Amino acid sequence: MATTFHALNPATGASLEPEFRSSSLAEIEHACRAAALAAPEYGQRSGAERARFLREIAVQLETRREALVARAQLETGLTAARLQGETTRTANQLRLFAEVVEEGSWVDARLDRRIAAQEGVPERPDLRSMLRPMGPVAVFGASNFPLAFSVAGGDTASALAGGNPVIVKAHPAHPGTSRLAAEAIEAAVAECGWGAGVFAILYDAGIEVGLALVRHPAVRAVGFTGSLRGGRALMDAAAARPAPIPVFAEMGSSNPVFILPRAMADRGAEIARGLHASVTLGAGQFCTKPGLVMVAHGAPGDTMRGELQRAMAATPEAPMLTAGIAAAFRAGGAARGELRGVERMTNTGALLFETAAERLLESPELAEELFGPTTLVVRHTPAQLLELARSLEGHLTATVHGTDEDLRENAELLHVLAARVGRLVLNGFPTGVAVTHAMVHGGPYPASSSGETSVGTRAILRFVRPVCFQDAPEFALPPELQDANPLGIARRLDGRITRDPVRKVFRRRRTKPAGPPVSR
Amino acid sequence: MATTFHALNPATGASLEPEFRSSSLAEIEHACRAAALAAPEYGQRSGAERARFLREIAVQLETRREALVARAQLETGLTAARLQGETTRTANQLRLFAEVVEEGSWVDARLDRRIAAQEGVPERPDLRSMLRPMGPVAVFGASNFPLAFSVAGGDTASALAGGNPVIVKAHPAHPGTSRLAAEAIEAAVAECGWGAGVFAILYDAGIEVGLALVRHPAVRAVGFTGSLRGGRALMDAAAARPAPIPVFAEMGSSNPVFILPRAMADRGAEIARGLHASVTLGAGQFCTKPGLVMVAHGAPGDTMRGELQRAMAATPEAPMLTAGIAAAFRAGGAARGELRGVERMTNTGALLFETAAERLLESPELAEELFGPTTLVVRHTPAQLLELARSLEGHLTATVHGTDEDLRENAELLHVLAARVGRLVLNGFPTGVAVTHAMVHGGPYPASSSGETSVGTRAILRFVRPVCFQDAPEFALPPELQDANPLGIARRLDGRITRDPVRKVFRRRRTKPAGPPVSR
Repeated sequence: MATTFHALNPATGASLEPEFRSSSLAEIEHACRAAALAAPEYGQRSGAERARFLREIAVQLETRREALVARAQLETGLTAARLQGETTRTANQLRLFAEVVEEGSWVDARLDRRIAAQEGVPERPDLRSMLRPMGPVAVFGASNFPLAFSVAGGDTASALAGGNPVIVKAHPAHPGTSRLAAEAIEAAVAECGWGAGVFAILYDAGIEVGLALVRHPAVRAVGFTGSLRGGRALMDAAAARPAPIPVFAEMGSSNPVFILPRAMADRGAEIARGLHASVTLGAGQFCTKPGLVMVAHGAPGDTMRGELQRAMAATPEAPMLTAGIAAAFRAGGAARGELRGVERMTNTGALLFETAAERLLESPELAEELFGPTTLVVRHTPAQLLELARSLEGHLTATVHGTDEDLRENAELLHVLAARVGRLVLNGFPTGVAVTHAMVHGGPYPASSSGETSVGTRAILRFVRPVCFQDAPEFALPPELQDANPLGIARRLDGRITRDPVRKVFRRRRTKPAGPPVSR
Repeated sequence: MATTFHALNPATGASLEPEFRSSSLAEIEHACRAAALAAPEYGQRSGAERARFLREIAVQLETRREALVARAQLETGLTAARLQGETTRTANQLRLFAEVVEEGSWVDARLDRRIAAQEGVPERPDLRSMLRPMGPVAVFGASNFPLAFSVAGGDTASALAGGNPVIVKAHPAHPGTSRLAAEAIEAAVAECGWGAGVFAILYDAGIEVGLALVRHPAVRAVGFTGSLRGGRALMDAAAARPAPIPVFAEMGSSNPVFILPRAMADRGAEIARGLHASVTLGAGQFCTKPGLVMVAHGAPGDTMRGELQRAMAATPEAPMLTAGIAAAFRAGGAARGELRGVERMTNTGALLFETAAERLLESPELAEELFGPTTLVVRHTPAQLLELARSLEGHLTATVHGTDEDLRENAELLHVLAARVGRLVLNGFPTGVAVTHAMVHGGPYPASSSGETSVGTRAILRFVRPVCFQDAPEFALPPELQDANPLGIARRLDGRITRDPVRKVFRRRRTKPAGPPVSR
């Protein structure tokens, strides 16, 4: 593991200074031990303290904005405008998570007050529980979002918000951007006056460091965004540990699009233009790129397909993130064009393919993601629509275009799709994943490992577990569970959601006499 | 898999009629297909409908109360009083879950309203998400709770409450009790007028049926209560599937007990009596049996240990659940007595062992669960207390006895323990797991697979995943996400928890013009 490597400029192929070195086993060990040592103290910091930390990371990122954008541009070939937007998104994501942990109700505090013994039923003790951190989290940055899904991105933000130290394995395609973002986090740690261990970054040109990290006993959970192959390798390694840990892997999908008859007739051309923009946005390098478009046989579908075909053929070539991604796209596109029953519909620009529903139903692997500016049109009869939907594996999103009348007539289609995706988009396009409270970016396997979301504030819930305190005196309880509700959070008190304090009349005795245990 | 088997009466060794037959591959296939077919309809039933179903199961169980208790007594050797209590617990558990799904706020509904485009920032769509069912759940009944953690027990109740069909693999030690409970559920399905597929039961004398069930593509999650070996085998099988699924396995633990100096001095004898009752309750066959007791060197500890020793030696022998469990207990107890540095302290009654802290710190396997009426006293110096706590793996519970002054002086001990368990018990005993909203029965591996709870209403959250609707018209939204909030549930509206409807002034347009996608 003493290998060195350089980032490459995907636009020119040029090697970029400085040289990076794959982290050594000693460095991995050091990072994991420091994280384990820091975990108890960091995990007990208040929501207000964690919020201040997250906001400070945002400020430190913005302080380095120009350097981050310039370096990321060299390492990824993405435009400055896109990277400026991504920096803003990354900072605002941290601020949104800060709001949530500062407000505090996210911990799902539950208080069940003591119930006195009566007629054969023993006393029920006072029980209070809340979500608490799991411990050090390993985060793997994504190639396609060098800021928002990388070192200081969504997985790091949600693990830190939840109270867990983070060890990032930098993506080898953008080590320089990663180092700058890591410096921003380290500066925030220093600004808060905290010691080391809350955050660390490791580098590697290959997969050994990442695997060693996932196998390290101090690591308690994993966040990953990337390929199915990469994600599954980490899932398998985590499941094979002496003590298995959860891996939250977002592994992409084909994001099927369904177009219902009236919408097709009313605005087929408009949908084709929107689809083209969505498919080719950022050279098709989004997890939510629509890679599968169901188009009914017949004239309106032909017209819509023709419009899409013209737009795809006229698309200027855009550089891809890495030479490896570009090569995989070329190879995957060539292979798809050779498949029986699949027709290549463009000779220039972006790659458009067409096939018949029968082919997709026979060969579900045709629905697999092909990362890059390409999509597959599937021509079908009205009767095949539901069958196509039912044949789908897990996807991040599904999209349906339809008038209200279309949608009412196809209620079953919507139900079938909602059971197979994390997000159902109506009359829109799946690219564009807003960071909000309600967002779900994740779906049944293989879209993600578990169906949990890696975007939005619900992502914090991946990195916590419930802990219950039985008959604890006030002073031994976290503020979230104290009678007075000093943080004023929403809690489930005897099952009812309220911000009220626990009423004194129900106040628990301080010490419970040691008696025979109850046996419910 | 055409083997037949009988339940055995553990008190007499006699074979009990009738004969049971291991389910065939065709029966497994049939159950899984029916569950997959039933899943969409059952998953869309309202909370009120599911509540009615759960309450009907409770009624049907109570209708069969005498038969259930009589058969369970024969199959498990547990007392009629215990089984009467367990029947009540099982019925009340279903009713509590019914309350939660009827009230409805548990779905964590989140609504983020549309934000119009402004100065370079594109429009943010309307996003609404909630927790939805995962699909068919396989449930494995436990040997030690033939009712409350078996066919109609906590895993089944939480999976059904969450909207998932359930396929139970009956525990081979109590097939007759299992069949009676299954009949109660089937009667409730019929009473609700539903078709087959919502529930099924399979039998097996061995492990093949269970493994085939976990490997079946229709099964989307697993609930299990049992041994570490059994749970880990299912975890490994689930992780190796082409599409891995989560296994929520509760695998027991040693539930360490810590006794602080003032509590030991004040009421050491009382604690010893409580401990003895907790260790020997139900012949020590509880997941939360305290199997590890930290007792300081010195006179108060000697006195307390002496009291415990007398009580343990005087414990009448109680029948164990199965001949296999009894044999494993005898073998495990004999092996423990042979270990270097471990002293056997009783020659009659229940098994008490003692060792020194140094031995446990050298050989953490001494902390492993020994299922049955036995515990291990660990003598330590004051300085070793924290070291012992830090050496612990995951446990379901930890218990601390201490005066307020003791607890204030040992705040660090409480923090260390809370990071290693699901429930921290103060001045009580860990046996007795109340079914409430705040209960946590689960801890870091190996206590459970994931740290999630298998007892209490939070258990429902294991069997759901979030689904988001983007720009969906009102009629295409589940009631939980509709503007008017027809169910009156607590929701997170633009981040703020409220039961208010969405104000009309913010009402979304019905169809969104197809435009260029946003790229945040």
